[in-house]
Amino acid sequence: MQDTGKALERMREGAPLVQNITNFVAMNVMANVMLAVGASPAMVHAEEEVAEFAAIASALSINIGTVSGPWATSMELAAQAARAAGRPWVLDPVAVGATAFRRDLGARLLTHRPTVIRGNASEILALSGAEAAGKGADAADPVAAAEAAARALARAQSCVVAVTGPVDFVTDGQREARVRNGHAMMPRITALGCSLTGVIAAFVVDQPPFEATVAALACFGLAGEIAAETARGPGSFQVAFLDALYDLDPQVLTARAQVELAVPA
Amino acid sequence: MQDTGKALERMREGAPLVQNITNFVAMNVMANVMLAVGASPAMVHAEEEVAEFAAIASALSINIGTVSGPWATSMELAAQAARAAGRPWVLDPVAVGATAFRRDLGARLLTHRPTVIRGNASEILALSGAEAAGKGADAADPVAAAEAAARALARAQSCVVAVTGPVDFVTDGQREARVRNGHAMMPRITALGCSLTGVIAAFVVDQPPFEATVAALACFGLAGEIAAETARGPGSFQVAFLDALYDLDPQVLTARAQVELAVPA
Amino acid sequence: MQDTGKALERMREGAPLVQNITNFVAMNVMANVMLAVGASPAMVHAEEEVAEFAAIASALSINIGTVSGPWATSMELAAQAARAAGRPWVLDPVAVGATAFRRDLGARLLTHRPTVIRGNASEILALSGAEAAGKGADAADPVAAAEAAARALARAQSCVVAVTGPVDFVTDGQREARVRNGHAMMPRITALGCSLTGVIAAFVVDQPPFEATVAALACFGLAGEIAAETARGPGSFQVAFLDALYDLDPQVLTARAQVELAVPA
Repeated sequence: MQDTGKALERMREGAPLVQNITNFVAMNVMANVMLAVGASPAMVHAEEEVAEFAAIASALSINIGTVSGPWATSMELAAQAARAAGRPWVLDPVAVGATAFRRDLGARLLTHRPTVIRGNASEILALSGAEAAGKGADAADPVAAAEAAARALARAQSCVVAVTGPVDFVTDGQREARVRNGHAMMPRITALGCSLTGVIAAFVVDQPPFEATVAALACFGLAGEIAAETARGPGSFQVAFLDALYDLDPQVLTARAQVELAVPA
Repeated sequence: MQDTGKALERMREGAPLVQNITNFVAMNVMANVMLAVGASPAMVHAEEEVAEFAAIASALSINIGTVSGPWATSMELAAQAARAAGRPWVLDPVAVGATAFRRDLGARLLTHRPTVIRGNASEILALSGAEAAGKGADAADPVAAAEAAARALARAQSCVVAVTGPVDFVTDGQREARVRNGHAMMPRITALGCSLTGVIAAFVVDQPPFEATVAALACFGLAGEIAAETARGPGSFQVAFLDALYDLDPQVLTARAQVELAVPA
Repeated sequence: MQDTGKALERMREGAPLVQNITNFVAMNVMANVMLAVGASPAMVHAEEEVAEFAAIASALSINIGTVSGPWATSMELAAQAARAAGRPWVLDPVAVGATAFRRDLGARLLTHRPTVIRGNASEILALSGAEAAGKGADAADPVAAAEAAARALARAQSCVVAVTGPVDFVTDGQREARVRNGHAMMPRITALGCSLTGVIAAFVVDQPPFEATVAALACFGLAGEIAAETARGPGSFQVAFLDALYDLDPQVLTARAQVELAVPA
């Protein structure tokens, strides 16, 4: 398994331009998170230009958090263009089980073959067609409950699936990893999960998707741990988190990454 | 009158899922404020799903700050669905007097019978049909100038009306309260008023609307007072405010709430 | 040349209502930046009301960062209404060279005669019709490479053009200035450039555009220098920046503004 610190270093050297079609809640914090970690984010979603831009960018992330009809069209156009241009793309199926509109869109986006899918347990369960408990953006299901669904989804889609929660679970259908970095305050700050999806998109540029996803999760989680050392609540946590991402030393990441590889069941 | 700290405790125990159709400026800070205080926000506005989601959520808030045609349609669908499902909903009529488009939308939304209306004095005056001085999101009229309009609106709509400003005024047409908590820095941070509307929506879930609104205002204002103790300007104020909301002890709220009940004129 | 501190004082006395049609990433931070510096921002973009509002506001800013079809229509309507009402308006042509959609919109907006254009070097080159290297929101070209294009654009449009970067360049086609205030951390925080465009719009209300633009740039850059004195990374920088803008003493601005006037080539 590739060194996580080296993966961070490599991402920073490339400073990849990542196109993000994301939700309105996440736009600002996601851009700041991606800039802090060393990537170059661009939020471009208009039907008129989304495919043209997808061919310019090095990767694409799509998040359906506040999707509406015209945005759904743009998401499909962008995913198609990214595939056609050989660019990786990452799907964040926010609250995909909550409504028929989201379930339909989730299924359509899968036909454009994401490189990585990142969601909470409820979202991965819903996307894989299983029954899920979560209705909003929060996960009502534990990560462990979604492991089999994640495996099945990864195999069916030939992609990497990351189920994030207190301990993250990553699988490409063959290999599996658990990432234990992170902090309990993180779900109390909105759009950190969405921002992580953009960070994964930056890491998978010119790096193997399974390893790059694991490294992105460890990097993000460790920044959370460092932020928690000084934060007094969710306001100061968010500030300290951006500072920690910006400052993160690849060697410290290698030393403090808590990654366990496992053979799939 | 119910204890304000108890109202906060009860809201936190329920951690209600609140659907918010709000403006682009407020989306992120409103979600963070609602998470910090202990609620579970979801920003869902697409015409395709807004009514389906309104029936899942425990409450709805609607804010017309950056409304456009398609969003206006979604607001009506969501308000209708919330009413049909017996869910409370809260209206934030941002700058309702500024343009014909907003005046028309404000009048249409009133036909869906909000549980609570929260606005500044200029907005409440405009919504009640009176002449108002304010054109933008700032109130050009003092709170006292809108008390009669608030009373009339509360009676006509059988709802609670909260006029916020240096001293907040709350009425259900029968009872009245003034809430003196808050800090002069609060209007210098964008979307705090919008965020308060979401907090009110969380408080009114399974609690009596007049008392719950008063408690939400006291809670919000007190967090502002605590934030002001350490803030050096609007940047650090916003950070300290989220930390204070997250940390707010219900007993401290009960002790420091500055609420005066009055008999209406 | 007018004193920069006096220009800040005058803007604060007027606290001008500025209408902003901006991108989703910038909305919140731009509003907070404008409130902190002493202006009164309003984000209003719906086709149904944008022209009516442009006549109420004292100035208009237009930023094409996350533009889509309906927003492009609103931008043209607002620019037209601002011109008709004799109000200044400022154009921020984000990533204008990246796609055909943006190039076309940039050209159409120029027909509505902006008072000031603010962009990075790549954007000013693209807008003036020259070849530019930048594809995203970041400038790939140095400021110096865009000076001739800025001059030509200023003369063709009879407007002020500001090329921002490590050293800002401002020209009205006759006079030129370089502003050396600022800090290297500023490009690592998203939407600060967008926010600056709103600050320029506030400064040009009832003040001569060339001098007001220079003063706005010096004010913004100095707040960045002050923020950098205490910031530990991009998270704490953003907080300290808002505090510094709010606290900025006009006499300190006059003393620390680094402005060089020059005769154009």
